[in-house]
Amino acid sequence: MADPTVMVLNGPNLNMLGKREPAIYGATTLADVERMLADAAKPLGLAVDCRQSNHEGELVTWCQQARETHAGLIINAGAYTHTSLALRDAVTAAELPLIEVHLSNIYARESFRHHSYLSPIAAGVICGLGVQGYVLALQAMAEIVKAHVA
Amino acid sequence: MADPTVMVLNGPNLNMLGKREPAIYGATTLADVERMLADAAKPLGLAVDCRQSNHEGELVTWCQQARETHAGLIINAGAYTHTSLALRDAVTAAELPLIEVHLSNIYARESFRHHSYLSPIAAGVICGLGVQGYVLALQAMAEIVKAHVA
Amino acid sequence: MADPTVMVLNGPNLNMLGKREPAIYGATTLADVERMLADAAKPLGLAVDCRQSNHEGELVTWCQQARETHAGLIINAGAYTHTSLALRDAVTAAELPLIEVHLSNIYARESFRHHSYLSPIAAGVICGLGVQGYVLALQAMAEIVKAHVA
Amino acid sequence: MADPTVMVLNGPNLNMLGKREPAIYGATTLADVERMLADAAKPLGLAVDCRQSNHEGELVTWCQQARETHAGLIINAGAYTHTSLALRDAVTAAELPLIEVHLSNIYARESFRHHSYLSPIAAGVICGLGVQGYVLALQAMAEIVKAHVA
Amino acid sequence: MADPTVMVLNGPNLNMLGKREPAIYGATTLADVERMLADAAKPLGLAVDCRQSNHEGELVTWCQQARETHAGLIINAGAYTHTSLALRDAVTAAELPLIEVHLSNIYARESFRHHSYLSPIAAGVICGLGVQGYVLALQAMAEIVKAHVA
Amino acid sequence: MADPTVMVLNGPNLNMLGKREPAIYGATTLADVERMLADAAKPLGLAVDCRQSNHEGELVTWCQQARETHAGLIINAGAYTHTSLALRDAVTAAELPLIEVHLSNIYARESFRHHSYLSPIAAGVICGLGVQGYVLALQAMAEIVKAHVA
Amino acid sequence: MADPTVMVLNGPNLNMLGKREPAIYGATTLADVERMLADAAKPLGLAVDCRQSNHEGELVTWCQQARETHAGLIINAGAYTHTSLALRDAVTAAELPLIEVHLSNIYARESFRHHSYLSPIAAGVICGLGVQGYVLALQAMAEIVKAHVA
Amino acid sequence: MADPTVMVLNGPNLNMLGKREPAIYGATTLADVERMLADAAKPLGLAVDCRQSNHEGELVTWCQQARETHAGLIINAGAYTHTSLALRDAVTAAELPLIEVHLSNIYARESFRHHSYLSPIAAGVICGLGVQGYVLALQAMAEIVKAHVA
Amino acid sequence: MADPTVMVLNGPNLNMLGKREPAIYGATTLADVERMLADAAKPLGLAVDCRQSNHEGELVTWCQQARETHAGLIINAGAYTHTSLALRDAVTAAELPLIEVHLSNIYARESFRHHSYLSPIAAGVICGLGVQGYVLALQAMAEIVKAHVA
Amino acid sequence: MADPTVMVLNGPNLNMLGKREPAIYGATTLADVERMLADAAKPLGLAVDCRQSNHEGELVTWCQQARETHAGLIINAGAYTHTSLALRDAVTAAELPLIEVHLSNIYARESFRHHSYLSPIAAGVICGLGVQGYVLALQAMAEIVKAHVA
Amino acid sequence: MADPTVMVLNGPNLNMLGKREPAIYGATTLADVERMLADAAKPLGLAVDCRQSNHEGELVTWCQQARETHAGLIINAGAYTHTSLALRDAVTAAELPLIEVHLSNIYARESFRHHSYLSPIAAGVICGLGVQGYVLALQAMAEIVKAHVA
Amino acid sequence: MADPTVMVLNGPNLNMLGKREPAIYGATTLADVERMLADAAKPLGLAVDCRQSNHEGELVTWCQQARETHAGLIINAGAYTHTSLALRDAVTAAELPLIEVHLSNIYARESFRHHSYLSPIAAGVICGLGVQGYVLALQAMAEIVKAHVA
Repeated sequence: MADPTVMVLNGPNLNMLGKREPAIYGATTLADVERMLADAAKPLGLAVDCRQSNHEGELVTWCQQARETHAGLIINAGAYTHTSLALRDAVTAAELPLIEVHLSNIYARESFRHHSYLSPIAAGVICGLGVQGYVLALQAMAEIVKAHVA
Repeated sequence: MADPTVMVLNGPNLNMLGKREPAIYGATTLADVERMLADAAKPLGLAVDCRQSNHEGELVTWCQQARETHAGLIINAGAYTHTSLALRDAVTAAELPLIEVHLSNIYARESFRHHSYLSPIAAGVICGLGVQGYVLALQAMAEIVKAHVA
Repeated sequence: MADPTVMVLNGPNLNMLGKREPAIYGATTLADVERMLADAAKPLGLAVDCRQSNHEGELVTWCQQARETHAGLIINAGAYTHTSLALRDAVTAAELPLIEVHLSNIYARESFRHHSYLSPIAAGVICGLGVQGYVLALQAMAEIVKAHVA
Repeated sequence: MADPTVMVLNGPNLNMLGKREPAIYGATTLADVERMLADAAKPLGLAVDCRQSNHEGELVTWCQQARETHAGLIINAGAYTHTSLALRDAVTAAELPLIEVHLSNIYARESFRHHSYLSPIAAGVICGLGVQGYVLALQAMAEIVKAHVA
Repeated sequence: MADPTVMVLNGPNLNMLGKREPAIYGATTLADVERMLADAAKPLGLAVDCRQSNHEGELVTWCQQARETHAGLIINAGAYTHTSLALRDAVTAAELPLIEVHLSNIYARESFRHHSYLSPIAAGVICGLGVQGYVLALQAMAEIVKAHVA
Repeated sequence: MADPTVMVLNGPNLNMLGKREPAIYGATTLADVERMLADAAKPLGLAVDCRQSNHEGELVTWCQQARETHAGLIINAGAYTHTSLALRDAVTAAELPLIEVHLSNIYARESFRHHSYLSPIAAGVICGLGVQGYVLALQAMAEIVKAHVA
Repeated sequence: MADPTVMVLNGPNLNMLGKREPAIYGATTLADVERMLADAAKPLGLAVDCRQSNHEGELVTWCQQARETHAGLIINAGAYTHTSLALRDAVTAAELPLIEVHLSNIYARESFRHHSYLSPIAAGVICGLGVQGYVLALQAMAEIVKAHVA
Repeated sequence: MADPTVMVLNGPNLNMLGKREPAIYGATTLADVERMLADAAKPLGLAVDCRQSNHEGELVTWCQQARETHAGLIINAGAYTHTSLALRDAVTAAELPLIEVHLSNIYARESFRHHSYLSPIAAGVICGLGVQGYVLALQAMAEIVKAHVA
Repeated sequence: MADPTVMVLNGPNLNMLGKREPAIYGATTLADVERMLADAAKPLGLAVDCRQSNHEGELVTWCQQARETHAGLIINAGAYTHTSLALRDAVTAAELPLIEVHLSNIYARESFRHHSYLSPIAAGVICGLGVQGYVLALQAMAEIVKAHVA
Repeated sequence: MADPTVMVLNGPNLNMLGKREPAIYGATTLADVERMLADAAKPLGLAVDCRQSNHEGELVTWCQQARETHAGLIINAGAYTHTSLALRDAVTAAELPLIEVHLSNIYARESFRHHSYLSPIAAGVICGLGVQGYVLALQAMAEIVKAHVA
Repeated sequence: MADPTVMVLNGPNLNMLGKREPAIYGATTLADVERMLADAAKPLGLAVDCRQSNHEGELVTWCQQARETHAGLIINAGAYTHTSLALRDAVTAAELPLIEVHLSNIYARESFRHHSYLSPIAAGVICGLGVQGYVLALQAMAEIVKAHVA
Repeated sequence: MADPTVMVLNGPNLNMLGKREPAIYGATTLADVERMLADAAKPLGLAVDCRQSNHEGELVTWCQQARETHAGLIINAGAYTHTSLALRDAVTAAELPLIEVHLSNIYARESFRHHSYLSPIAAGVICGLGVQGYVLALQAMAEIVKAHVA
């Protein structure tokens, strides 16, 4: 039987990761993160399905599709975290556990980044821990998926 | 002469209607609703043109297109009700009567669903009456279209 | 067996309907509306019991009385919509389905008319559709009453 | 010399007490409460004058009348607690000590029930203790009346 | 031809005027004020029709009635100033000029008395000038009525 | 003995009265108003001392000067009504009764004109009654001055 | 079998009761209150365990300890009422009925005393009734304990 | 060497320019504006690259692409001005100077149009000056680009 | 016939331009700006009349004077932008087109600088573009003046 | 050389973990968590120093002490998260990296738990992931400590 | 070499000091305060330059002038403290250390006196300590000036 | 007779003074400050009693104790300034004059530090003047104590 698959969604501007100001943000690209997650998934008995979009509507559609075929959602919605009620509704419709990830500490930034539409419906939130945050989220998801199965 | 056509727009996640938790939401799918509307339109001397999108930009474009060719707009904008100023501007640009519909009673839900960007520019609002709400909206639109023609 | 009866309550200043500025508001009086509702009720298998008062306390008392004898409430509470918590409590005490009606689109008027104490406890809300709104509300109530009976 | 009389006012919907959902709210009616208070008053050297109205204006008038003839006010204003400035002014005009009573704990309910127009001018507030709250209020009023006389 | 009549409405607790704490508020009763207004009206070519009620609904009804038969409204709505949207709507329905009067300076009192639902639809507001305020309001109304006639 | 003198202060832009859009605001200039007040003062046993300035500091200084030599203040502070705490402090320092006047009904205009720094320290407020408002204010001041003397 | 014991907690500055300005607050000390409660407890079939602390952490610890050994909590948390979420969580953790008491009427004091973190999780609130409030709270607690046992 | 290119982005509904109500908005279409900008660019030593989209995600992607190849951004984001944090982040990621343009004066419209997510990260803002605003923005951009190069 | 004259007003502290921290703000003084504007005005068929004051009242007076003799207003009101309602009223009274200019981007500064009393009554706003902003404003004013004349 | 030590602080009521409602919260006690952390620390090249207090002051003191001797702080401040500015200042004074942990998802609870005084000064935040959250925090801290050393 | 000079500015209504209600405010006039400051300055190695104005613009101008010639600013801006952003900008332009003084404790007065536009840019604030506050400010300024020189 | 003693309380984290980042905050420790105050007290005819605690409850208790034995309070409550209502109540209970001191200018820091629970009940506030602020406070206290004795 195939490993349960976790959908990992990255929202607007996260495709710029590692391309922009490497001296500051590091040279880790989104592709690197996705490889890192694929590597980390195996020993946890999981597979990952990583996607990125700048379009709110596309992220909504992917969440809906995950409903039948995936075991969980890890989402870094970027700026849509703070403005997209549609994405929240899509996660609710997916009826899958969500772990929300942010590379930076959103509570240390502008006040309009302190509120997340996703947090109230997430299982958990990890923020400020850089690309490692995705891996920690995957570990946490493994526990949640295991508990659902058990 | 062809019957005047009403554009019926459904926003994000309404494509999930009837697919998700039928025990709770019923087995009525969006396709069923659209058939129901087509049936109801005829005796009212109207045709309906039903569309759904998860993309804010696509809904905006459809509203703009309705301007020259349609007689009115019935919109259930889903989550974009509460966040999309662009859709509101598109309705204003369309210069067509709007009836806003919601399946559930948005005033009985989370406070961020109590405000609608569309309501202030709508002719009328119908909410909480389930799929029947669309049919009632079509009846009301028939009156409005008749009055415009008269 | 008698048809189930729906109580239709109109609040303060709605007794002025059709008497004031007929050029603007039309010549339809409240008596006309009540006749229209009586006519519409029959084919729906319902009776209507229409009342109007400028007194908050009287509207409260009527709601309480409906509890044992009526099948549903259609209320246009006029200005009390926005200020009367007592009426809301009376509707809750009546334990009957409520459809809230407004002649004008309250969301397009002064900001203090955007909040309704009744909406959060209503089954549905219809606003901005003029006197036709009452008839649509009756149609919707017929469905609700039928579902309760079934 | 006759015992000093305390006016006990109950506001809108409190006439429904014990009639509605006895399984939840108990079978104690307002009439029972009033008998209970009459019994409790005697050993405290007080008489009670119990009234209920759904009309804000009637409650106002009763407060005014109490001014010359009563020794204190115990008021459960129901929903008018949160909306009636007129009742507050009437209590001020009565120049009598007020104890405010609520059957339920208003601070554990909807946020619009957290503010009372009467509390700032009351001698004391008792809430959440059910019908016993009226009896405790009467005991407290006995102390206050005694202190006034002394 | 009879003099145009101005309706003078006094709201809740104003029937207590002069009866309560004469040392502070003076011995002028509401009856005195009404006589004073009758006397002042004559040389201005006006008649006055003075009424007082503690019932919001009754004040609403009186405003509606004034529509056909009176030339203007002078209202001291007491506490309903700050809470009654129904009274405001009744004044709007009456389509008569309104002068709002307050005995005390409401802007020097508790913050919830600083907002008046009537002020935005009044021709003018006079407050803080005691019973003389009514007479000044009548003088101003005389000018307004004269201008309407002219 | 000379008549007590009332200082009448007009704030910024009131020097434009009657010069701007006479079709709308009438042809009454500030000089006309001042003459009207001088005429009205005499039979009331008062004199008036009328001044206008666009400078907040000058209005402050005049208030201070009134302290020793004048019997009362009538102020239409124009826009400074809503922004000048310095003027309020000057009135407090003058220890003279103040009647605040506004030509238009400030409560029917933009929300930032609804709050006045002067109102809470005024004896009374008259607004919306045009140039007649000044004369009514003078009449009211005559009563206040008389009471102070008596 | 020993009587059920009610823990009575008094928060910061309540140890000053009766020591400070006896002319105003009376000569009743906290020790007096505690004796009064011990006396009142017996005929109610209860024992009391009275404690006072100026330390938030100590009040938290006492609440936790009450969990296994006490039948209810009566708390006058003084200033911590308005600032201590930790105390609220401790009461929740104790899973015991709470009656909140305040000597003065907190709703008649500064606005920052109008909100209590404890009220929403209390069974009831008694305030403004001085030291008698504790005794009334004990009476109410007796009813609640009896109902739990029954 | 080719002239530096400025990306000119127009957001939702700006494709309707000149097509809708020409009597009011003029007959200038978006194509006209783009031609006007191309003409104005040349003497300034600049080229322009004009794009329009109703899709937030597409505008985001274009901003990202500008990063390597363009010298500056001129954006009229239409309704996304007020709701799109994603677009703001894309501009930040582009690390290019931004001049924000609005055809109408957004500060004279509904309050929800007074806040722009782009303004705090813009070099400058030009609004209310119609299609000329774009040309002025281009002139200003020429200065900025020149300064960067120098 | 003389060229139409535009009044250019600079508010408080703008007399310090170029005198303070030239390394940061540049060496351009207000006199330089005024010369630059005079030069730019000629080819546009305009004259400029430049004035600066630290006094709100003086700026008010100058606006009033412009009414009869000038063709438009360009105002950088400095700090009075955010606090002077009197200046706004003076501009309204002048009945001339206004273009508001700010050297820095006020939307990128402290939040109390984000609101301008002038913006809602301006034809247009230009901010963040340094001294060039004045010249762009003059160009825009030329168009407006030409349109008025045409 | 000894492994760098991480101080793990638990705030008020976390000593109740596992003791209260094991059916809901599980049987894991705080002692279990601390053992789990000690086990997890070793392979990461870290030691842990775990402490719990209900006293804000004690937590403050411990943070200060960590300054010289510890390599990082992992804090679950319980209710003090939302009310203790003193703890925040102590963390700032400690000049050590902080990872904030919450067992439950605070963004899904009462609104007063949505704000954390610690989050803005934390390196990262992990919430909603139960006791596993502490272990993930330790993993993240290991990376941070390693980076500081490198 | 002459002693460094500190400019001491007093704002509106402070010229009334000692003239108004000497029984309450004492007989100390502003002239007395200024003499007291001159005396205190000498032993501190400072000179003082004391000015008072009711005009915001004059205070602004004086601050600007201090820039080249003075060593520090001590300002009691009276009511302009709370309303004058222009004065704040002038202090910023002066690039001199500021100590803000208030005779009364502004935090114990009306809420609109709790916010000062000057405090965020002041070196220090002294309030509530009467005329002694000026002398303390001078002592503190001596330290600051000394540190600047050192 | 012994000199009157002033209690000097320092709140949380002030024990870190001089220990933390001496390059920034200077090498002055709290012990140094206390010595400095002892030295300054003598010539003023005062003694000082200096205490520091990280515990809110301990600071409360010390204030209570000061009541009988001390002549005044100088408090730098650190973070408790902004969160401790208990400390405010303790100061009120102590019935001693309070001077509040802050080393840094709290009005120039995060907005949650702008409000002090102590300021409204303080005689005076000194902030932003570093350790010298304590000495200035002592000087001011000497005047207050002298006035009380006189």
